[in-house]
Amino acid sequence: MGYASVVEQALLTRPKMDTTVCISEVTPRMRKLEREAIYRDYIACLNARDWARLGQFVHDDVRHNGRPLGLDGYRAMLENDHAQIPDLHFQIKRLIADPQQVACRLRFDVTPRGEFLGLPVNGRRVTFCEHALYAFRDQKIHEVWSIIDKAAIEAQL
Amino acid sequence: MGYASVVEQALLTRPKMDTTVCISEVTPRMRKLEREAIYRDYIACLNARDWARLGQFVHDDVRHNGRPLGLDGYRAMLENDHAQIPDLHFQIKRLIADPQQVACRLRFDVTPRGEFLGLPVNGRRVTFCEHALYAFRDQKIHEVWSIIDKAAIEAQL
Repeated sequence: MGYASVVEQALLTRPKMDTTVCISEVTPRMRKLEREAIYRDYIACLNARDWARLGQFVHDDVRHNGRPLGLDGYRAMLENDHAQIPDLHFQIKRLIADPQQVACRLRFDVTPRGEFLGLPVNGRRVTFCEHALYAFRDQKIHEVWSIIDKAAIEAQL
Repeated sequence: MGYASVVEQALLTRPKMDTTVCISEVTPRMRKLEREAIYRDYIACLNARDWARLGQFVHDDVRHNGRPLGLDGYRAMLENDHAQIPDLHFQIKRLIADPQQVACRLRFDVTPRGEFLGLPVNGRRVTFCEHALYAFRDQKIHEVWSIIDKAAIEAQL
């Protein structure tokens, strides 16, 4: 019995269950799960301030809100964020992933020093969210589009 | 030969190609594509101001940024947006979907009347983006989390 007829026989005689023979369908699903896992590791890296590992997650040619920062510029941006917000911690509230992209609702409960987004926060505790979308290339974050909920911060001042 | 050994035999003798027996793997991929299609139809419905069709896309118990608006309240919110912004048009810039969720970067190039998000726009043309995340239930939008790039609008005034 050749391969095709063995599979045909298996399909004809299979129990009634949600089982399907599919071609190349595992790959996008696996890439989606891989994206999620890489993204969660990236957030853990940020929370650990483990800048030496940043290049494992972020592409050398990364862009942020249209600006071509590159990995060094991206790291400088993050280090500046942590200097401005000493208790900065990224909390994932919702995560949506497809094979090439991730979207995340991130929550912050922090006390920024001085001005933050042009607002006189001056060490007060504020909670707010950020919605960030990411496109991947070579298994790394290659482009980021981020919007922070500035109106939510204003409402707390 | 029972079902299990037939499948085992098929796997052992299968040709070297990207073919895999998988369980329930087609369904998430199809649900992702279905989410994308429903979402694009939803945006077309908004742009057509076709409020009679809104219930095809939006759940009776929809919530928006934590507020339990329900379908009627959601429609009232959208009608108010269109009254405030007569040339309101939703443009999809990026779309990320998984089986139960959608994330979208939406772009607007509009002239809001009077105040918009507390800013004195007063009929000036502004371009800005919104990042919206959606959770689905019963094939419909059940929860929305939206952040509008208020800082981008401020920078244009």
